[in-house]
Amino acid sequence: MISQETIVALASPSGAGAIAVIRLSGKEALTIAEQVFQSVSGKILSKQKTHTIHLGHIVDDGKVLDQVLLSIFKNPNSYTGEDVVEISCHGSTYIQQQIIQLLLRRGCRMAQAGEFTLRAFLNGKLDLSQAEAVADLISSDNEASHQIAMQQMRGGFSNEIAKLREELLNFASLIELELDFAEEDVEFADRTQFNELLTRITFVLKRLIDSFAVGNVIKNGIPVAIVGEPNVGKSTLLNALLNEERAIVSDIAGTTRDTIEDELVIEGIGFRFIDTAGIRETKDVVESIGIKKTFEKIEQAQVVMYLLDGSWMMEDGSLESVKIEIEKIRNQFPLKPLIVVINKSDTLTQDQITELTQQLTTDNRQLITISAKQKIGIDALKNQLLSFVNTGALRNNETIVTNTRHYDSLLKALEEIQKVSFGLQSGLPSDLMAIDIKQALYYFGEITGEVTNDELLGNIFANFCIGK
Amino acid sequence: MISQETIVALASPSGAGAIAVIRLSGKEALTIAEQVFQSVSGKILSKQKTHTIHLGHIVDDGKVLDQVLLSIFKNPNSYTGEDVVEISCHGSTYIQQQIIQLLLRRGCRMAQAGEFTLRAFLNGKLDLSQAEAVADLISSDNEASHQIAMQQMRGGFSNEIAKLREELLNFASLIELELDFAEEDVEFADRTQFNELLTRITFVLKRLIDSFAVGNVIKNGIPVAIVGEPNVGKSTLLNALLNEERAIVSDIAGTTRDTIEDELVIEGIGFRFIDTAGIRETKDVVESIGIKKTFEKIEQAQVVMYLLDGSWMMEDGSLESVKIEIEKIRNQFPLKPLIVVINKSDTLTQDQITELTQQLTTDNRQLITISAKQKIGIDALKNQLLSFVNTGALRNNETIVTNTRHYDSLLKALEEIQKVSFGLQSGLPSDLMAIDIKQALYYFGEITGEVTNDELLGNIFANFCIGK
Repeated sequence: MISQETIVALASPSGAGAIAVIRLSGKEALTIAEQVFQSVSGKILSKQKTHTIHLGHIVDDGKVLDQVLLSIFKNPNSYTGEDVVEISCHGSTYIQQQIIQLLLRRGCRMAQAGEFTLRAFLNGKLDLSQAEAVADLISSDNEASHQIAMQQMRGGFSNEIAKLREELLNFASLIELELDFAEEDVEFADRTQFNELLTRITFVLKRLIDSFAVGNVIKNGIPVAIVGEPNVGKSTLLNALLNEERAIVSDIAGTTRDTIEDELVIEGIGFRFIDTAGIRETKDVVESIGIKKTFEKIEQAQVVMYLLDGSWMMEDGSLESVKIEIEKIRNQFPLKPLIVVINKSDTLTQDQITELTQQLTTDNRQLITISAKQKIGIDALKNQLLSFVNTGALRNNETIVTNTRHYDSLLKALEEIQKVSFGLQSGLPSDLMAIDIKQALYYFGEITGEVTNDELLGNIFANFCIGK
Repeated sequence: MISQETIVALASPSGAGAIAVIRLSGKEALTIAEQVFQSVSGKILSKQKTHTIHLGHIVDDGKVLDQVLLSIFKNPNSYTGEDVVEISCHGSTYIQQQIIQLLLRRGCRMAQAGEFTLRAFLNGKLDLSQAEAVADLISSDNEASHQIAMQQMRGGFSNEIAKLREELLNFASLIELELDFAEEDVEFADRTQFNELLTRITFVLKRLIDSFAVGNVIKNGIPVAIVGEPNVGKSTLLNALLNEERAIVSDIAGTTRDTIEDELVIEGIGFRFIDTAGIRETKDVVESIGIKKTFEKIEQAQVVMYLLDGSWMMEDGSLESVKIEIEKIRNQFPLKPLIVVINKSDTLTQDQITELTQQLTTDNRQLITISAKQKIGIDALKNQLLSFVNTGALRNNETIVTNTRHYDSLLKALEEIQKVSFGLQSGLPSDLMAIDIKQALYYFGEITGEVTNDELLGNIFANFCIGK
């Protein structure tokens, strides 16, 4: 599967900037770089040490394209494990294109998505779950998802899996050995110890599998359905919630990017707000399309936030219709956490707030009174939202599974381990037990990439960006 | 003016990518980097050689933010001439922000726009016109503007100016010397040679000043007004003109950026197309707002392209109204180059084309028949557009002035040189002539930055991006 071709791609973000980085990897990386690079000092590139930087010009047929810094990383001491050259050029898109085109003419080919990291994996620089973490790391845009990706990239997850796999492998070989001496009826593998190991593996697998629930929402953001009429103050609320985080972003010019309106990061955890119309206007036609759509969106959410404009809540009949609406949601989704948020509390008297609270609070729902405009009650709402995330594992820096592929393999591995346990208890012959153990080992290996195939790798790396 | 603070900024384009580069410069660059960087090999950063790269982790209070490569450039062998550290991190915007914020907490401050290059200038790594070329280089998006910026950055322009300045300075000092011996009536400066020098300087200055006309359009694109009704095929024409160039761009994933619809690069020269409505519909109301606006846009253009739909040209009266419209433009702008382009030639017979050509061709306008859809006649149109650019200087790699500031200084220098010439011919006393020479030297120095002030530098570098 390892291609011998030398690949090239832009490694820095696309667009213009002060500098851009173009990366080459492969057997010919240095030779090709030498053809287009004239060192200011006249040094010969291929004779330079690894991890050194050289000032010079990129020259195409005698024409100087740019003055650049060129970094050399010699096999195996590079990201990919191959010879790698990084060209740090002036960051105009024109220069980026011209240099890449020149390198293509000189024998490189464009790297495919994730191909640098694929090569790193194939050359043993990273295991598969670490390689996958690289893509997660680049796409992580908050503290929690960054922390999990970083831990995975540094091998936390792989180490845990690899350790269990090794112990299991140990027992597997002892049991295989017993098969060789089948007629003598010996027991090399201590059944008590083996049972202990299986219990331990089951425990760890279950913990990892359970962590996926939180890992998945941390990676993708926690979906929160906001049920609310127009003009109840949703934008003002989102801005108030965002306030602090946005300030940090805008402190640093050049790193801000367009924020998607309805995504929020609160204390490092991402929340995705799904806007739904209120269902009030359709209250007489229970099966109307409007309600169906709103209910579909609530279905996708983990939390439902019911946002109300307190100022018109005191109008005749408003409170009643809201209560009906809330009951409808409650009946449809009895287990979904629901927060009722009364906005514009600054327009209400204390008596009015007390009355609303009494009317709308019941055992299984939260009520929070805020003024998004005056930034009153925002912290309470944040805490309420955060309370839906079990951040224990995150705060304790435990391994958290975020990858659906890993989750699937862990489930399958657990199933096999449970078969082995059952076999052990019911005195299954060693040869049959060995088959189940092998299958469990297979699923462990799938996660870290000891077991793999081209299709699997293709799927994984196709989701990477080009240049990584 | 040199600040002692250590500055930091994102140097790669903003947004997410495989990697991002964060740059530090200043006395404390290495010390600050040491505080946040843990080398994998355990090496102490400040003891490492210049131009070396080190693998390690960025650590904030024991928490690993990212695995990075860190490059060291030691004063004076760096871009700014100070100690410089470049951190090549994973390219998520979250990581970029976190690392920059950490560095700010550890004593860096955010770099201002162009501050790295300003420091390079103040430390004598670049002269002022070279520093200005850096910004031009980054913003250049076609071959011609890139070539000019590159030549300027490599000192072509400065060298030419510096050489003249030195020769002039030579004579100035001889003339100053004469002043010391004023009572003895000696002539140290050979007046014939001096006259020759002044002639030579005048010649060079005039050439440079003349080059600004082409330099300016190359830098900003040549404005072409397209007069044309909707649906005459403007978009199809622009696409047909763009065809080749766009293909090159889209070959390289990740380097494409949103193209502004009406900007075209033809053989390395940029053209900006200014869309104007036809003026036909208002032909009965000569002073109407519509015509005024169209005329204003034509005024801004260097070339007027009159785009027609050939298929309806054969309808009764169409040809006559077009002729009236063209005459109106011709009368208003007698000297502006005008190309009449008849599109959809594939719908016309050869006889019809001949008739249109006869009817619409006169001495001082060009007529080109094309089919944008069938890509017929596109090359002829390209050549016609290119013929309006005097690319002689560009092709001969002569110095071309693109910067309004340089142009102003050159004009002023020329004026002073002409005063000196006149003084020399009319026997002006040496002391008065010396004043004019000094003034000319001053303007030369303004270009390369030997003469400067804070306000001037502030203006120049404010137009840079942050990180450069």
